[in-house]
Amino acid sequence: MRNLITDVPGVKVGNAHDARAATGVTAAVFDRSCVASVATLGGAPGDRAVTLLEPEMTRGMIDAVVLSGGSLYGLDAAGGVSAVLCGQGKGAAFGGIVLPVAVQAILFDLMNGGEKDWLRTPVERRPPYWDLGRDAALAVGEDFALGTAGAGYGATTANLKGGLGSASQRTRSGFVVGALAAVNAVGVATIGDSRHFWAGAYEQGDEFGGHGFPAKIPPEALELRFKGQPAPATATTIALVATDATLTKAECKRLAIMANDGLARALRPVHAPNDGDTVFAVSTSRAGPGGEPAALTELGAAAADCLARAVARGVHEATALPYATSLPDYRRRFGG
Amino acid sequence: MRNLITDVPGVKVGNAHDARAATGVTAAVFDRSCVASVATLGGAPGDRAVTLLEPEMTRGMIDAVVLSGGSLYGLDAAGGVSAVLCGQGKGAAFGGIVLPVAVQAILFDLMNGGEKDWLRTPVERRPPYWDLGRDAALAVGEDFALGTAGAGYGATTANLKGGLGSASQRTRSGFVVGALAAVNAVGVATIGDSRHFWAGAYEQGDEFGGHGFPAKIPPEALELRFKGQPAPATATTIALVATDATLTKAECKRLAIMANDGLARALRPVHAPNDGDTVFAVSTSRAGPGGEPAALTELGAAAADCLARAVARGVHEATALPYATSLPDYRRRFGG
Repeated sequence: MRNLITDVPGVKVGNAHDARAATGVTAAVFDRSCVASVATLGGAPGDRAVTLLEPEMTRGMIDAVVLSGGSLYGLDAAGGVSAVLCGQGKGAAFGGIVLPVAVQAILFDLMNGGEKDWLRTPVERRPPYWDLGRDAALAVGEDFALGTAGAGYGATTANLKGGLGSASQRTRSGFVVGALAAVNAVGVATIGDSRHFWAGAYEQGDEFGGHGFPAKIPPEALELRFKGQPAPATATTIALVATDATLTKAECKRLAIMANDGLARALRPVHAPNDGDTVFAVSTSRAGPGGEPAALTELGAAAADCLARAVARGVHEATALPYATSLPDYRRRFGG
Repeated sequence: MRNLITDVPGVKVGNAHDARAATGVTAAVFDRSCVASVATLGGAPGDRAVTLLEPEMTRGMIDAVVLSGGSLYGLDAAGGVSAVLCGQGKGAAFGGIVLPVAVQAILFDLMNGGEKDWLRTPVERRPPYWDLGRDAALAVGEDFALGTAGAGYGATTANLKGGLGSASQRTRSGFVVGALAAVNAVGVATIGDSRHFWAGAYEQGDEFGGHGFPAKIPPEALELRFKGQPAPATATTIALVATDATLTKAECKRLAIMANDGLARALRPVHAPNDGDTVFAVSTSRAGPGGEPAALTELGAAAADCLARAVARGVHEATALPYATSLPDYRRRFGG
């Protein structure tokens, strides 16, 4: 086990970034089309091709999940991913037509200090996201970078650099569950200004420092801190959870809803008016059925745990951006 | 009154198409940001930036609605529209950042005979939709072509060429309501093989031929006819209704739901598993409040009527594509 979402057989992940623009794209691509759904609990989401993921809709299978910076400009990224998949013959076939389904969510990283050239001459100069999506899809593999990488490249939290995180586990029933998150929350992942993560209770080994959870939380650590006070600032954590258990689309929807509980445990506040907080859930259906209520409860709890851990790892692995206004990263702040 | 959605003050529409690929894009752009929502009742939708339109989401205002061919490949179009709007300074401003909100729905026109070059060398050759979106946004005005134009360029119904339609009316309360539809339905807009439209009961003047509604419908005209029997075929009618009445986002959602009734009256079958049938509703908020139940009932009924008429006009105005397999157009079939 790599402690990455790619521990789920059939899931590969690739990153691409534009260092000058301080933004990037992460693509999760599936060896075979997967059953999927989504649950969006943040108030300011941006997404592409997500309505088809609702349980009452016909299409059951998707080929990629794309996480991207760039806010709404970033929604071109799934186009680049789709081009790569089309070239590989991946997706539904209609007559001679190959139609991959790449669903996407974005985060807002437009004010992080990077040079967003396309905002100055937008008709002449396209945003970089279609190309970044293509490059991320071409880069997929079982290993991929965490922290300041892919969709987490330009991400921040309210007090520290954010980033791309991942985690995985095997359930008692023998299923594999994994999570992938680009952490750009309105809130914080740490308990106050301490080195402890809110996700500390769920840490496996020392995957994000091994500092555990504090026995007592000082009152000042509960004082609310979030981006953009008093003016609003957009933010958003976007994520994917995956399992090899065989699930229906409605069961994937349940998995996505339960996985959002991992965000609730790892970030404070979260699901806020200016968070987008979109969680996709996919079933590669390589293992046995997991939709019976007890089995799905176990999968949902594992997905929430993995997603909470992925959030902490995303912050723990991040490297600060180089600008004068850039937030510090966890390691520079706390060592390790 | 032009009998176009642009009769609603503050709404402009532009078309762009690629004749060789037999596809296109229509952009509706608003002079000022509009309150908006969406109701998607077809089973196979494809869309961009639509979750933010739900009433529980924070963002209340949008700057453009993009209708496009290309199925999921077409979802790049809103990127081109956004680039134009960004260059014009349209959209929300965050610090120095301009962020236009362009929402989008697509229809499936990939198997209509046009040369979809990008499907053969997809990584090297981008789909044309980003460029078509840019061109449509640059072309907006109060007059625009109907029929084989914009997002309706490559559209079909089960028995006749489909197309882009529009209609408008003034309500008893003095509000203006308009509809815009790209008609690519699984079903048919005509009553059997007759020249009568299902929308005939709502026709104003002779806007789609003036043939009215038949006094008696022959049983064979009720025999169900739809695309893709026995194999499924994707299709989709996508639409926008607009009013100058001042509405909240929740009231726009209600307007979008009632407007779908216009699709129900104009197409048989509709809202099918392989239809995407996404209807956006926007309020330009230039006139008085329209959300009180009686007022909103009148607006919703007018939106449904306008959308039914827009569907019939889209078919009535269309010109057949030039391929051997192309469906005939209404005028060639029935004259006029």
